[in-house]
Amino acid sequence: MTAATPGPGPFATAAEAVAPLDAAAMADATALQSRLTKPAGALGALETLGIRLAGIAGCCPPPIPAPAAVAVFAGDHGVVARGVTPWPQEVTAQMVANFCAGGAAINVLARQAGASVIVVDVGVAAPLEDHPALLRRRIRAGTGDITTGPAMTVAEATAALDVGAAVAAELVAGGARALVTGDMGIGNTTPAAAVIAALTGRSAATVTGRGTGIDDEGFGRKVTVVDAALALHADAIAAGPLDALAAVGGLEIAALAGFVVGGAAAGVPVVVDGVIADAGLLVATLLVPAVVDRCVAGHRSTEPGAAAVLGDLGLDPLLDLGLRLGEGSGACLALPVLEAAARVLGEMATFDAAGVTEKPV
Amino acid sequence: MTAATPGPGPFATAAEAVAPLDAAAMADATALQSRLTKPAGALGALETLGIRLAGIAGCCPPPIPAPAAVAVFAGDHGVVARGVTPWPQEVTAQMVANFCAGGAAINVLARQAGASVIVVDVGVAAPLEDHPALLRRRIRAGTGDITTGPAMTVAEATAALDVGAAVAAELVAGGARALVTGDMGIGNTTPAAAVIAALTGRSAATVTGRGTGIDDEGFGRKVTVVDAALALHADAIAAGPLDALAAVGGLEIAALAGFVVGGAAAGVPVVVDGVIADAGLLVATLLVPAVVDRCVAGHRSTEPGAAAVLGDLGLDPLLDLGLRLGEGSGACLALPVLEAAARVLGEMATFDAAGVTEKPV
Repeated sequence: MTAATPGPGPFATAAEAVAPLDAAAMADATALQSRLTKPAGALGALETLGIRLAGIAGCCPPPIPAPAAVAVFAGDHGVVARGVTPWPQEVTAQMVANFCAGGAAINVLARQAGASVIVVDVGVAAPLEDHPALLRRRIRAGTGDITTGPAMTVAEATAALDVGAAVAAELVAGGARALVTGDMGIGNTTPAAAVIAALTGRSAATVTGRGTGIDDEGFGRKVTVVDAALALHADAIAAGPLDALAAVGGLEIAALAGFVVGGAAAGVPVVVDGVIADAGLLVATLLVPAVVDRCVAGHRSTEPGAAAVLGDLGLDPLLDLGLRLGEGSGACLALPVLEAAARVLGEMATFDAAGVTEKPV
Repeated sequence: MTAATPGPGPFATAAEAVAPLDAAAMADATALQSRLTKPAGALGALETLGIRLAGIAGCCPPPIPAPAAVAVFAGDHGVVARGVTPWPQEVTAQMVANFCAGGAAINVLARQAGASVIVVDVGVAAPLEDHPALLRRRIRAGTGDITTGPAMTVAEATAALDVGAAVAAELVAGGARALVTGDMGIGNTTPAAAVIAALTGRSAATVTGRGTGIDDEGFGRKVTVVDAALALHADAIAAGPLDALAAVGGLEIAALAGFVVGGAAAGVPVVVDGVIADAGLLVATLLVPAVVDRCVAGHRSTEPGAAAVLGDLGLDPLLDLGLRLGEGSGACLALPVLEAAARVLGEMATFDAAGVTEKPV
């Protein structure tokens, strides 16, 4: 927890364990797709996804990636002092209680998908009541204001990476066969935009969005805030992704980066959703490039930073339903598509077995 | 079965029973959406869909639209003699056997969604073996070649409308809470394109696609065939949708039109998928305009005729995964989204109940 760079903790261990996709399993899946009772390519994205799931699992047909587990990483943000959101900071803790009680959107969507939900406090500012669904992994009570200083130290960012990687490993050890990235933190689209701008070289105006809904004046203020943070922390940003993350990021963004790496190391697909998780994913891919092939983009967030990250990484979201909530909501909606992609390879009849005539070549 | 226009059969009965959406339930759902613990509008298409489900069910929150039932209407097409598809006609009957055995894509995707599958023979050319999942409602053994004569008589088209409406009523009586349109018929993208061109005034070249996969030469031939059918049957097309359907349609297209109306009359959402079902939907909306509000477009088919119909009807597909298989496959993938939309209204906590502070106005 005190090393200045990832040491031999859960994150470093996971980073070492991330393997390339299994080429033999993918070749088997590709060949199998062509023998199933359907015109070649007629299942579109389900076919390419099924092949990737085979590569992730290392076998064909791949196992059905269920049950899934959603981890909602929660943190607060000092930058809310700059008026980047109309919501009061107390809502972060209130929503954590709502997640624990099962009343939030992510709870409903996870139930629909047969997924579990845990909440991980990595940096909420207010006290939280105990609950079986709450993991207490608080590193500090909210980040610093990124317009006046760093969000956190590099040691704190490293600790958050470790928390995320450890949670992923625990969930898979507990039976999860897919992981879903969730987030909660009033104001967190501002550090997410800052991280994405910092690490992709894009301008603040390009990657900043309206988050949960701000007016034109608020949006202008938000872009100015991101610009100020980028200018203040130019040296840290130039020093590399970990330093940039510590300077302008968030504790839940760092934990999500660790979670992505932990899930990739554990051999399960990681379904990513929302601009906060996309910022974490971006950090993860810069620290451990091989993770990108083991991630599935669940949903196309309306936040411009999300499109920037997913476009750069070549990840095409499965769903595009206009959600802009975070929490992992869009990824949960995508889980049945992953399951269907695996089932197609595992359960469809081949032309030979079904006695169906193939199209003449 | 012998009336020249829809008589007092299942279709006419259903057509009379289709009601407008329940405005009070939709107003309740709209108001409830604004009190749930999420930023206004943050669940995007899930919110508008939930409101529509309330309007369809006539209550708020709406019931979860599950279990769903898929009806795969199967028919053959005389126009295959014109070389519009590389697949031999025998594949229609072979695929019916595959559906009955549970090995086709639609079986796999329906299992994933918890939906049942039945196959309805409304016009297969070859003999079929008995199976509990097969409903024998054959009206004739394949249509006529639409380039040399009508696909079927108006009486036959009417009989197919009745079959579809009756199947919908039976499935809902048996417990289905959502219906999914499925189709099978080698060559059926050709009559679907002809129906869509005929009833939207578009050119053959605009609405004809490559179906299960044809080369440039085959595609050119297909457009020529559709053009020839439109020219031959110009009088029937001018006479109205039922005559047009009989002249250039297909038995499964007619049955699907009846199925849409039957489902709408029974008060359950009808999830439509694929260009064949879209052609049936188009006919249904011309005969009974109110059905459109009770239909949900499950998936954006890559066939151009599908986009034409859905665009004209103002239906925005939930999914866009590049499928071009038919069978109802894309609609099955969309079923969890419908269920999620209903669950949001039924299960999410309100700001008041959860003790979450609302954003200041």
